[in-house]
Parts: sequence; structure tokens; C-alpha cells
Amino acid sequence: MSDAPHRVVIVGGGFAGLYATQALRGAPVRVTLIDRRNFHLFQPLLYQVATGGLSPGDITSPLRAVLKRQRNAEVLLAEVVDVDPSAHRLIFSDGDLDYDTLVVATGASHHYFGHSEWQRLAPGLKTIEDATEIRRRIFLAFEAAEREPGPAQRAAWLTFVIVGGGPTGVELAGALGEIATDTLKHEFRSINPAEARILLLEGVDHVLPAYPPELSEKAAWALSGLGVTVRTNALVTAVDAGSVTVRCGETTEPIATRTVIWAAGVQASPLGRVLAERAGAPLDRAGRVMVDPDLTVPGQPAIFVIGDLAHFRHQTGTPLPGIAPVAIQQGKYVAAAIRGRLAGRAPAPFRYRHIVNMAVIGRAAAVADFGRVRFDGRLAWFFWLFVHIMNLVEFENRVLVFIQWAWSYLTWNRKARLITGTSPFPLRASTDSREETASAEKIVTIGGDENTSNEA
Amino acid sequence: MSDAPHRVVIVGGGFAGLYATQALRGAPVRVTLIDRRNFHLFQPLLYQVATGGLSPGDITSPLRAVLKRQRNAEVLLAEVVDVDPSAHRLIFSDGDLDYDTLVVATGASHHYFGHSEWQRLAPGLKTIEDATEIRRRIFLAFEAAEREPGPAQRAAWLTFVIVGGGPTGVELAGALGEIATDTLKHEFRSINPAEARILLLEGVDHVLPAYPPELSEKAAWALSGLGVTVRTNALVTAVDAGSVTVRCGETTEPIATRTVIWAAGVQASPLGRVLAERAGAPLDRAGRVMVDPDLTVPGQPAIFVIGDLAHFRHQTGTPLPGIAPVAIQQGKYVAAAIRGRLAGRAPAPFRYRHIVNMAVIGRAAAVADFGRVRFDGRLAWFFWLFVHIMNLVEFENRVLVFIQWAWSYLTWNRKARLITGTSPFPLRASTDSREETASAEKIVTIGGDENTSNEA
Repeated sequence: MSDAPHRVVIVGGGFAGLYATQALRGAPVRVTLIDRRNFHLFQPLLYQVATGGLSPGDITSPLRAVLKRQRNAEVLLAEVVDVDPSAHRLIFSDGDLDYDTLVVATGASHHYFGHSEWQRLAPGLKTIEDATEIRRRIFLAFEAAEREPGPAQRAAWLTFVIVGGGPTGVELAGALGEIATDTLKHEFRSINPAEARILLLEGVDHVLPAYPPELSEKAAWALSGLGVTVRTNALVTAVDAGSVTVRCGETTEPIATRTVIWAAGVQASPLGRVLAERAGAPLDRAGRVMVDPDLTVPGQPAIFVIGDLAHFRHQTGTPLPGIAPVAIQQGKYVAAAIRGRLAGRAPAPFRYRHIVNMAVIGRAAAVADFGRVRFDGRLAWFFWLFVHIMNLVEFENRVLVFIQWAWSYLTWNRKARLITGTSPFPLRASTDSREETASAEKIVTIGGDENTSNEA
Repeated sequence: MSDAPHRVVIVGGGFAGLYATQALRGAPVRVTLIDRRNFHLFQPLLYQVATGGLSPGDITSPLRAVLKRQRNAEVLLAEVVDVDPSAHRLIFSDGDLDYDTLVVATGASHHYFGHSEWQRLAPGLKTIEDATEIRRRIFLAFEAAEREPGPAQRAAWLTFVIVGGGPTGVELAGALGEIATDTLKHEFRSINPAEARILLLEGVDHVLPAYPPELSEKAAWALSGLGVTVRTNALVTAVDAGSVTVRCGETTEPIATRTVIWAAGVQASPLGRVLAERAGAPLDRAGRVMVDPDLTVPGQPAIFVIGDLAHFRHQTGTPLPGIAPVAIQQGKYVAAAIRGRLAGRAPAPFRYRHIVNMAVIGRAAAVADFGRVRFDGRLAWFFWLFVHIMNLVEFENRVLVFIQWAWSYLTWNRKARLITGTSPFPLRASTDSREETASAEKIVTIGGDENTSNEA
């Protein structure tokens, strides 16, 4: 070891980046973890924040608190805008930092298929702010319906459209079904929340397209039990402030709705494009970096790309899904590879060990696919609960989330449903700030989000 | 009883309005509770959200959930903009509603002594959004200091100024002292958070001016133990993005700081002025309604004003403080008065029964004043904890807050310190959006917030 230890800079404090940092504990390196946010987000439970079941603080952990006892690690709040591979330098919006090894783990978001103007009308679910905005829209819609005298407008307020039938879309739709039929029961005087119409739109012919067909069927069946209408082979052709236009086969139908949630498509973080320009990284159509078998950028052994931003196809010929277990295993692999290199060993190629694909549908149903073993129903639900609670980074969060779940389960309540942010008055025009029509002629296919969801 | 029951309309779902609504349970009336927000906020713990100890969901309860089993009550999300006493009609920004009896309980906020331009620079602590904004500024200041190379600028990031030495100011200062010395210990690599300078400015000659002098002294002593510098007889003469100017006696001193929090003054809700114009209600200098002994507006027996918006001086010759126990007792009184009237009885004048004034200073110190009995230190702290937890409206919140407190107490951690909202990059200019100088020549006295705080 020289006086200046090898400097590893990791960009992104999600599953991939945080696990890579932690797996470098005790290694003869200096690790700098950079994120734009000061917390790690447990994304698999983000839909619970969007539907009022949990608070943002329950599914986030301060990065500094998580790493405070790791002596070789530091945390930096910064926004990376560029990289200079020849100088081994990372450029921030307000500074720069040199590295010996760079690990990029900045993830992906939803893709609007060339209609970025739909984002305002139909928010996706990737950040805490997305979740509280969706929560605001959901609970405000019921409030507006309660005060709306016109039957057609009232029905539009009580219609919820979720675009994309991957795990996130299925989980959101299930939670919305519960809210309408159980949580809000007896709480309104003019409307019956159970009359809400919840539509889940999926572009291919079944929900959870990445799962075995039998589990897709069970999921669809569980959703219909919660009052969710699943429309498969459904293509969204336009989104505006008062409606979504859907084409199913030959028929095109406008659906009057005030609440649209987007859970489709994969769009890699902008750092993918930076790596393409500066380091010659090959990108796939979603903007993800096509990495080498050791997760480095081709021709750039000092730059690793892991997690949702990485497109890794060496194992199966198709890209690994954008889920938490892949990100975690890649994070740990990179840490081992860096340790090995410093000890003079070349790393073996990365191999993903499939454990389980899961999705939860409402209060007591879930599907789980272990490859050889598949199960559904209440047992899968308890298993899903257990896995998610045990994977929360902080012990305190585990306890709090467990209590809130137990309590919600017993009382059917969702306590964290506060409407915050922009003033919603007058209620009837509360979404008129997004009145500008963002429709388009182009027809796009609605994909599930199997590549961006983060089921642990 | 006629077919159309007596209609009671209550504006404001704080302590006064919510307790009035609940105390009308089973009465032969139809109650409509109107609020701009869909939740009741437990304001005495709002400073815990502002300092990352609790999540917004922990100290709020959905009004609909609280009242779902009260058959004679309904909740309406609306913004009241006007009232027509001759027609017995309330006017919303988007509709109207007739009443037989009106109860106005819309509270008060902080007063900037004619410098409303300071509000942006030095946010007060009245709403959930205020709390998350203050939280954002506090934790971002430490992040910016960590990345700041210049010693003077770094010191400005590490200087926190709290204006107003009432209970809210004292509690915020104590929590900030804990954050700097305990919570953030070992979490930074370039700065030592314990070097943060926390200044509490109070206009008169001691903090907690509404408390007995011996408890004020104990509070000042406990604050200094947490590293808080208390400046009494301190007058703020200017606030701008990089500094606060303070006059103490003869000397005027600018203090370089990037974080100023306002906890001074009382400014009644705008509905006070509406009642003055429409119903001839007399107002005090803070805009509060000077109510009759039965809490009605003079000459308007159908209109009650309760809580922080009411100025009630019939008992002691001075206005009752703006604290939760007063609001709760007034809410219950109004409900009893309405029941009595419907039964043909004239109500006896309202009388406030003093129970306790409390303030907490950091981890294990508090002061409590029961009138004849006063105590401080750890015993007062446990008592404060017990009273606050037991007064949370929902059972689940009590359990969650208790666990979080126990956990914070054992680990010194504060988990809910996520920085959310506006993007903070570049960090060094993160408050430059408030760069416009809002200084002024006029010298104002800093009052404590004893009339607006909400100690239960």
C-alpha cells in the first residue's frame, strides 16, 4: 500500500451502489459514495408511500447514518454531470473529483415512448417526490368527487388508470383497489368510494409478462377480486388532463379520468449517454450501457456500470431484469473484483443467481416465482412481507414498517395519506394546471415495467 | 327535532375544531368540519419533523378516518374565503354552504412585524410543508459545509439562527444542538458538526417569557449544555440570504448565516379580518377576534371563534395563550354550549382551567409548570413525553412515535432526515434563490411565541 490508497468513486446510493460501498468495508481503498440525495431509498415499497400505507421516512435511510462506522467510506452530496476517463476525473455541477476506479450505478426511470409531455399528466413512480405527488392525486380525487355535483365529472374523478402491468403497476392497482373498497369505507357522505373504477392497462396479452403464465393468471384473478379491471393488448394513443385514449385491437376508446399513473417502459439515467460520448460505451435502445462480462465498460477497465443502468446479456442472451437482487449481486461482485485486482487477480465473469420474482396484490395475495417452485395467495403474501421487511436497511425501519403493516391489516386503515404540496383549491380545477393537451397521433405500445421494477 | 337538524359548520380541523366536532357526537345536530387539509396536525410535535426525528405521517391523522364512526359528522375539503352572517352562509373559493351555527377555528401563524419579505428567508413552523422545508435547510447546510473549502463560508453554513425564545424556539434550538453534537457525530469527514453555532435570539431579557423565571433559567442552562448560545434583549433589524443583523443594546452586529428559522410573533388567520368586515368582530393588534365571555362574536350569537384565532381576556384580563389545552377546552365548551342552547339553556361563560405549561430541551431535559408545582430535568422530560404521546389522536401514531423516541434515545439517531423537494444543486448556491435582500431599516422587537405555540 502506498500513502495514497486506491480511490474508488461510486455514483448512486441505490441497491447497487450502497451494497458495493458496504462490501468494500475494510478493503485497502478509499471509497466515496456520491448521490444527489442524502438517503438510500428502498424502492420496492415506494408504491406503499404512493398509496398512503407508509411514510417516506419509513423506506429511506440516511446514507451517512448507514455508513458512519465504515472508516474507509465517505458520502458526498453532489450531482455528476460529466466524466473525463483519460484524466480519471468526475465532473459535478459544482466541482470535480479524481478516481482510480469508477462505479456508475445511477439507475433508470420510466419511459414515455417519445411523449415526455405525458410525464406531467401521468407521473411515474421512481422518487419520493413522485410517490407523494401520486398520493396527493389519488386522495384529492376522492375529495373532489365528494364535492362534485355533476355525475360525469364525478365519475371521471373516480376513474383511476394505471399504465403498465409489470410488478409496480400490479402493486399500485391492488393497493388502489383496497383503498376504494376498504380503507375509505364509511368515510364519505356523497360518494361511495367502492364505485371507483380502477383500470390497469397492459400492452401485451397478460399482466406480469416477465413471470410464468400461471402466476400472471393468478395475479389477474386476484386483481379482479379487488375490483381492478385489467385490459390487456391495450395501447395508449393519447393522454390529456381529462382523459386517456386507449386502442384495444380495432377499437379506440377515450376514457374520462383525472388520475393517470405511469408504470411502463425503461429509460436509463442520463449518465449512460455521458459514458457513451466520453468513454465510447455501447448503449441499448433504452440507453443502458452494454457491459463486458466483468461489468466494466468495453475498453475502459477502470469504469464499472452496475444496477438498472447496466445491460448484461452474457449469461442468458437477454438482459438481466432491473430488479433489486440483480443490483445487489452486481454491487457485491464489483467490490470483490476491485479487491481481487488490488491483490493481482483477474475477476471471473459476473453470474446472477436467480432467487425469486415476487409481486404483491393487495392485502393478502401475492405471487412468487423461485424458478422451480412457484406459489401464490396468502403464503406468498407472508413471504413477500417477510422478505421486504428483512431487507430494509435499518433495524428501526423494520420495526416501524412491521407495526404499520400489522396495524393496517387489522384495521384496514392507511394512515399516511396526507395531501401535501401545492394548494388544491378550487378543487374542481385542481389538475387544470396540467390542462394543456398532450395528446399525439402516434400509437405506442405499453410495456410492463419488468425491467425497471425493484422487487427484492 | 324537525326534519332538518340544526346545522353546525366548523371551520378548521386543529385542536379547537376537531375537539368541538367530536364533542358534538350524538347531539341532535348535523356537523360539517371544513379544512383546507385532509388531516389533523399534532402541532406540538411539528418541531420533531423539522429536525428529522419524526415523519409527517406520524403526527398527522386523516380527518375522515378520525370521524368515520361519528354518524352526525361529515368532512369537507374546502377553502373558506368569505362569510355572509345575514344569510348564515359560508363562501368557499369554489362553492358555498349554509349554517345555523358557525364555529371558526382557523388559528394563527407567525408574524414578521411588517417584514413579510423575511418569510422566504426565515421560514416559520406552522405547517407540514414548513417543517419539511426547515428540515431540508438544516440538513442541506451540513452537506454544503462538508463540501465548502472557504472557512468563512463554511462557518456561515454551520451557523443556525432561531428567532424567538418561546417554547417552539427553545425546542428547535435544543433539537438542533442535539443534531450537531450527537446525531451527526462521525458522519462527516471534512467538518466537525459539533462546531456548529446555534443562536437563539429573544427580544426580552429571558427565554420562555410566559413561564416562571426559575424555569426560564433552567431552560437557558439546559440549552447552554447543548451548545446553544442564547442572546436575550436581541432585536433583529435585517434578514438577508447570507446574514441576520441583530441589535443588542447599543451594538448592532451582522451574523453570517445560511439558515434562519422564525419562531416569533402572532398573526391571526385571515378569517379574523373577514369576520371584522362582515360581522363587525372587534380585532386585537395581532388580528385575533376579541370574543364575548361565551366565545361568540359580539352581537353575533350564531358565530363562535375558538382556539388561536380567539382573544379571550375575560378571565384574567390578559389574553389566554395560544396553546393546545386552551383550544381543546374551548372546543369542548362550544359543543356543550350548542347542546345547551338547543335544550333551551344559556351557557355559563367559558373558564380555562390551567393544567401545565411545558417545553422540552433536547434529549432528556424539560421544564413543566403546573402553577403551584414546577419541575425540570429528566422527570419533566418523561412527563412531557408521556403527555405528548398520549395526546396523539390515533393509537397507531402513539405506538410509532413511542418506538421512534425509544430508538432515538438509545441510538442518538434521527432517521427521518431526508432532504426532499427542490433540487439543491449546485450546493453552494442552494439558497441563492432567496438572494434578494430583504433587509430593512426598521428595528423590530423579537417576541417569544408564547401566544402561538401549541404545547399540550
